[in-house]
Amino acid sequence: MTTETKPSPRERLLEAAATLTYRDGVNIGVDALCKAAGVSKRSMYLLFESKDELLAASLEQRASAYVATLLPAADDGRSPRDRILHVFDQVELQSGAPEFHGCRYLAVQIELKDPGHPASQVARRIKKNLTGFFQAEAEQGGAADPGLLARQLSLVFDGASARAGIGADTLTGLVAPTVTTLLDAAGVR
Amino acid sequence: MTTETKPSPRERLLEAAATLTYRDGVNIGVDALCKAAGVSKRSMYLLFESKDELLAASLEQRASAYVATLLPAADDGRSPRDRILHVFDQVELQSGAPEFHGCRYLAVQIELKDPGHPASQVARRIKKNLTGFFQAEAEQGGAADPGLLARQLSLVFDGASARAGIGADTLTGLVAPTVTTLLDAAGVR
Repeated sequence: MTTETKPSPRERLLEAAATLTYRDGVNIGVDALCKAAGVSKRSMYLLFESKDELLAASLEQRASAYVATLLPAADDGRSPRDRILHVFDQVELQSGAPEFHGCRYLAVQIELKDPGHPASQVARRIKKNLTGFFQAEAEQGGAADPGLLARQLSLVFDGASARAGIGADTLTGLVAPTVTTLLDAAGVR
Repeated sequence: MTTETKPSPRERLLEAAATLTYRDGVNIGVDALCKAAGVSKRSMYLLFESKDELLAASLEQRASAYVATLLPAADDGRSPRDRILHVFDQVELQSGAPEFHGCRYLAVQIELKDPGHPASQVARRIKKNLTGFFQAEAEQGGAADPGLLARQLSLVFDGASARAGIGADTLTGLVAPTVTTLLDAAGVR
């Protein structure tokens, strides 16, 4: 008997799906996923109804880590303005990694081109939560139009991560001044 | 003899590649492309070295129409501010179409995840020209930092078209106020 806990086939499949679709795109084949996970196709289809469901589950599983790395801790005592800027500092930080390809929840929706796909639905929900965070902070910070500011910040978030993800731009000296300008214009000091 | 000019096999392949990759993604198969174009695979490979080259050529061919629908006419007598806002009015207009999936030159780079792919290279060059337009107008309009404003406008352009393309947001009441705020902050009146 061993006390070591090895990742289960389910965990290995979720990890492979997250890693390979982020690196290579949503059209990665079932064979490649199973090979990377060290799991037979038969086992995969016993665990997941389809590749689509596996992809959706892998996005879902990553959601809490995504939120934890981007968002500030609840009640960290900082101002709404600083809490909003924190999110963009994190994106700027992440975008410096060589394996950065932008926000996976944006990329998957662009690649699938199908809002009804189970993975698109998961991705859309997770992104909506980010807009919800911006809206709550904008309200707390006394923004003139919190709904507009939340939409603007989401737009900047996606534009920044997309452009950095394809190597069209770096975020240094770009994202912070842009967000600052929008916060100033909304009256969030 | 007929005087009617039918699209050539080359033209039909370029059209099919542009339409199908925009709708379904870059992983569309050669069989589907040839079928849509009504061209045999043998003929396709006589005209294009590979599917990658066909995709790159189809993006290249669309570039002049893309520029014509987005950019104002040279020397139209309007102010740099109005000429910049024109571009975003056009994106807002285009994004209302049911078949809108965002900017094809952004999508293709996100989907391919390979800056060295011939189609990524074409797409990157075309997007750089848009940033170049913003920079020239920003300089003309006396922006405090024309390079920064051009990067900001490119970021807003990509964020807006990506979010509208996946149906995460509409651009009405969003993109114009955002661009206006950035132009104001840069001193482009």
